[in-house]
Amino acid sequence: MATLQWDSLDDRAVDTARVLAADAVEKVGNGHPGTAMSLAPAAYLLFQKVMRRDPSDLDWLGRDRFILSAGHSSLTQYVQLYLEGSGLELDDLKALRTWGSKTPGHPEYGHTAGVEITTGPLGQGLASAVGFAYAARYERGLFDPEAPAGESPFDHFVYVVAGDGDLQEGVTSEASSLAGHQQLGNLVVIYDSNQISIEDDTNIAFTEDVAKRYESYGWHVQTVDWKKTGEYVEDVAELYAAIEAAKGEQAKPSIIILKTIIGWPSPGKQNSGKIHGSALGAAELAATKEVLGFDPEQSFVVAEDVIERTRGARERGAALHREWQASYDAWAAANPERKALLDRLEAGELPEGLEQVLPAFEAGTEVSTRAASGKVINALAAELPELWGGSADLAESNLTTINGGGSFVPSEHSTHEWAGNPYGRVLHFGIREHAMGAILNGIVLHGPTRAFGGTFLIFSDYMRPAVRLAALMQVPSIFVWTHDSVALGEDGPTHQPIEQLASLRAIPGLDVVRPADANEVSYAWLEILKRRGGPAGIALTRQNIPVFERGDGDASGDVFASAANVSKGAYVLAEAASGTPDVILIATGSEVQLAVAAREQLAAEGIGARVVSAPSLEWFEEQDAAYREQVLPTAVTARVSVEAGLSLSWQRYLGDRGRAVSIEHFGASADYKTLFREFGITTDAVVAAAKESLAV
Amino acid sequence: MATLQWDSLDDRAVDTARVLAADAVEKVGNGHPGTAMSLAPAAYLLFQKVMRRDPSDLDWLGRDRFILSAGHSSLTQYVQLYLEGSGLELDDLKALRTWGSKTPGHPEYGHTAGVEITTGPLGQGLASAVGFAYAARYERGLFDPEAPAGESPFDHFVYVVAGDGDLQEGVTSEASSLAGHQQLGNLVVIYDSNQISIEDDTNIAFTEDVAKRYESYGWHVQTVDWKKTGEYVEDVAELYAAIEAAKGEQAKPSIIILKTIIGWPSPGKQNSGKIHGSALGAAELAATKEVLGFDPEQSFVVAEDVIERTRGARERGAALHREWQASYDAWAAANPERKALLDRLEAGELPEGLEQVLPAFEAGTEVSTRAASGKVINALAAELPELWGGSADLAESNLTTINGGGSFVPSEHSTHEWAGNPYGRVLHFGIREHAMGAILNGIVLHGPTRAFGGTFLIFSDYMRPAVRLAALMQVPSIFVWTHDSVALGEDGPTHQPIEQLASLRAIPGLDVVRPADANEVSYAWLEILKRRGGPAGIALTRQNIPVFERGDGDASGDVFASAANVSKGAYVLAEAASGTPDVILIATGSEVQLAVAAREQLAAEGIGARVVSAPSLEWFEEQDAAYREQVLPTAVTARVSVEAGLSLSWQRYLGDRGRAVSIEHFGASADYKTLFREFGITTDAVVAAAKESLAV
Repeated sequence: MATLQWDSLDDRAVDTARVLAADAVEKVGNGHPGTAMSLAPAAYLLFQKVMRRDPSDLDWLGRDRFILSAGHSSLTQYVQLYLEGSGLELDDLKALRTWGSKTPGHPEYGHTAGVEITTGPLGQGLASAVGFAYAARYERGLFDPEAPAGESPFDHFVYVVAGDGDLQEGVTSEASSLAGHQQLGNLVVIYDSNQISIEDDTNIAFTEDVAKRYESYGWHVQTVDWKKTGEYVEDVAELYAAIEAAKGEQAKPSIIILKTIIGWPSPGKQNSGKIHGSALGAAELAATKEVLGFDPEQSFVVAEDVIERTRGARERGAALHREWQASYDAWAAANPERKALLDRLEAGELPEGLEQVLPAFEAGTEVSTRAASGKVINALAAELPELWGGSADLAESNLTTINGGGSFVPSEHSTHEWAGNPYGRVLHFGIREHAMGAILNGIVLHGPTRAFGGTFLIFSDYMRPAVRLAALMQVPSIFVWTHDSVALGEDGPTHQPIEQLASLRAIPGLDVVRPADANEVSYAWLEILKRRGGPAGIALTRQNIPVFERGDGDASGDVFASAANVSKGAYVLAEAASGTPDVILIATGSEVQLAVAAREQLAAEGIGARVVSAPSLEWFEEQDAAYREQVLPTAVTARVSVEAGLSLSWQRYLGDRGRAVSIEHFGASADYKTLFREFGITTDAVVAAAKESLAV
Repeated sequence: MATLQWDSLDDRAVDTARVLAADAVEKVGNGHPGTAMSLAPAAYLLFQKVMRRDPSDLDWLGRDRFILSAGHSSLTQYVQLYLEGSGLELDDLKALRTWGSKTPGHPEYGHTAGVEITTGPLGQGLASAVGFAYAARYERGLFDPEAPAGESPFDHFVYVVAGDGDLQEGVTSEASSLAGHQQLGNLVVIYDSNQISIEDDTNIAFTEDVAKRYESYGWHVQTVDWKKTGEYVEDVAELYAAIEAAKGEQAKPSIIILKTIIGWPSPGKQNSGKIHGSALGAAELAATKEVLGFDPEQSFVVAEDVIERTRGARERGAALHREWQASYDAWAAANPERKALLDRLEAGELPEGLEQVLPAFEAGTEVSTRAASGKVINALAAELPELWGGSADLAESNLTTINGGGSFVPSEHSTHEWAGNPYGRVLHFGIREHAMGAILNGIVLHGPTRAFGGTFLIFSDYMRPAVRLAALMQVPSIFVWTHDSVALGEDGPTHQPIEQLASLRAIPGLDVVRPADANEVSYAWLEILKRRGGPAGIALTRQNIPVFERGDGDASGDVFASAANVSKGAYVLAEAASGTPDVILIATGSEVQLAVAAREQLAAEGIGARVVSAPSLEWFEEQDAAYREQVLPTAVTARVSVEAGLSLSWQRYLGDRGRAVSIEHFGASADYKTLFREFGITTDAVVAAAKESLAV
């Protein structure tokens, strides 16, 4: 174990961190000073002494990752980023929580350099950290699987600072159970057990035995109690030793339960809910500075020798980086193909000609879009080693398994049905949708692989906070949501999505993709993989639906348009027989066939109906105005939307004259044909709605 | 401990239950036979030997509650309801999972008599069961607090059957931690640990030590292993003894880990994922019947002596009921006031004149609606002992505390800030929003009290599956969602709701209520409490907003309408100066003040603008067409919606000519005035939108 170098100047730097945190909150008048103050020694230890990081290259591939799961304590991170000199300066701390600053209330990925993930909604950080640790292992498997443990340039640690709130959230429980199962030796969590949350002493709601709970998950558990002597002693060496022991435990994730006093050493407010989420106030701040030997009259003071010491992190980082670079260069020289793969992935590129491997599904057959998706995943997986994924215990329903990919579990957890190895491509989340979402986010935040996770569309509700965070971070997690309407049938209303498509589309920045037939599925997956600017969810049918006969280009006469048009989000699938539509039928997924059939019925009555397949409204809205006008001409105001769920998403396209064929109530348990008939999701209903719209 | 009476006829009844389950799935062709087969002994034991229930009075106040958290195994419950003769008959089993039957795919509350809660989305049942156990204690506190433990007619047990999926979901972890904390001795969970889920052997994803985990939560943990001898022996007596021990442990909730073989004794499919969620198939079903000594050629056969035995449950139930009735009658005679309270609650009535106690907030002052809500809750709580609630660790932010109500925790968990007792009115959920939702559902399902729970509006996402289930069950849970727009300010985009109001309104049957000022808060709470037909969420501001000067009736001239109009969902708050509106400004919550100010600016320019305050679109849609036409006359097509969030909810009211003042992207970290200005949530924006709409 390396020896900790620590002297009184380090103590002074830690106290400076505390005072800066209190000053920053005081200046803006609101925020969370308490944890940033009491956790300053731990954060300083990580940033200055423990983590492999280079302040001059925050994107360094070989860096250890730092995740502040207790995101409200953003100053814990901002102050260390300032001290190490990786981008933030004092003025940024002074601008805390103000418009346009680099120091928002919670750390935001993509906004502040050095922030690996947006945190704040409790539990998400720790749960996504499990995904980071998954990704580190999977990437190692892609690039350097033969290296002995700890000797690959792809080996590094994921450090998490979590708080009482994180430990209470269910998503943390789910992800922590998986982390133990996966034996993630590269994950080290420091749990700041200060026993104070907004309702003050956590004993009012949280008296479980956390250590025992984490042992039950298979974690390596240590407790570092700075209160154990009766006095409060911030024994940094003890914490350092625990971190070293955690790093040494390679077959288990580690949690260090660090018992602290929140807001220490604030004389009047330490150890209370008052210091958790409010400024100290001038008097208490002054008193705290006096305790620490700082001038109570001054703010944002950093002594020269302190900043000189802490900015030494740049030299330390440069040395670590040089050392790593040598090992990386040796790897690159010895592994040209793997290096080429890494280069491609880091460039965000797909192999050329990928479109050629997409399965083409035969027109006239009937295929569920989930079955098509399973085939497409496998076709793409053969070309894309970066593609991996699985399901929250619905593999055979979601059809998300990469055949022969091996399961991503320690070999000892192989079962009769699944052979596992640490570098497998098939993910098994168990019945833990929320952790699945958070883990997928962690995977794509960690590196350039593409990961997907499946469940029923209805259970997108269980993972919604993680989906939202992916959208907010603009990271390309892929969610596979099958059984995408009441047509899942007999399982009934608890399992039948009604409002899910609409409420997912309501999340800014999430692409919701609902292909109309098997060939749309091929192009939907291709387009999802081409995009890296945000998450996508693909909604797929349980039931078989027709594969349309299509031409190679745009719709014309009776020739349907090519499925390649999916990339535009919405397109004219079938033109009105006359060429000029009287009415536009806009549909998605399994309901497009109803629009197609209605078009024929209407044609027989002399009404020209255009069918627009609209697999993704988000992609459609990105198209230029001319294209959108071409698909949905302003002049054609007779319109019908057809989707077996709420009409909510469609109202903006329907206008005053339009009509919706939709379901505005919960479902029921029966076979899907009965449900569609009883709920009015039929060709006749589309025809009637078209006539009604025309009659307005 | 009572002695178990069990003979070979009971064995035969259990085997009949298995075969009926397999027959029912076989007939419809899909469903979940496996658990219903192997868990038949446990279910039969509970229904026939353990639980206090009366098949002829399924609503009996004194009954033990049964919750099938593993809802996919609905036959576990349906077959027992049939055997005991409480409503279901063989024809109902034959109609499993078909349109209109009493036996849908998952048990549905309000649809099938004897089903206490709708289950299916995993984890919800067990989490809500914790709420049932809370409610049992709280109701006992209301009606019979002095009775020695176990001697009150209000004492009973809550039994849960849960499966591997339930144990993996995070909501279960949250609720189980609370159950241990609360020392819920009246809760008994049988965890069917069959180690098979859809992806087959759960070892692929679930290897934690469940017993240790539940010990860490403070539960009483027992394991009953029917596989322990190497042979599979369904030792019912051992299970019975464990249940008796669980009942005897009064200071802890109990979990009995029952190790079973799913689908036993199916010779070819037991212990595999294949029998979890699919019909056995004719051959395997026949083989199973042969193993059990049933005629493989016949289906749905129930021997006379079996049904005669099991329908003995009616006599057993009548005896139990009589015995209980004596104790209840004695209680009623001794406690006339409490009996009167119970009668009022069971009738679903509020005290007369409750409107009189509503706080009246002074016009011209500025009050946040959360602060108003805190006052209203306390005013109502003084009159309504049935009202209780709290927060997911945000009490001081949500202002959900009933002052002096005492905290609902064992006294030993009192803290410096909160004094607790088992019958307290203040709930502390910790940072567990999802469990809060499920527990609130359990509380209102259990009995006639009214419970509320608070968090930030953004975290409605964390509790969404429970909110949806409340809406599906049409039970009156109350969700208090404060910090209801980007105006929460500095905490930034992770904490700022954008799509939440729209996506909550998208849930069928959920009332979303967003009052425009403090006096609307009073009437909003009153209306929520008057309603018992479904859940409501009240969205409240963090920031202060003006209290409008109002008249006593409808809007007229410059006199604003009374806040009592809130009950209609939307109403004319302020009429256009001219009396005939040129444009209608529809707003909610903190944005109504912008519409009011815009009305004045527009009046100065000679434009007549009507302001409609629309606290609840769901309540508005319930009004008759004439009223709706009066508020939003068809002829007035110039319209503007004003809400600091997505415009999605408003499109149906805006029509082609309308314009929305809204926010269609994520928020940012800054003070709220800056955010409103930068995001265009201003009076000027409303005025501009009105003119734009008029110009169309």
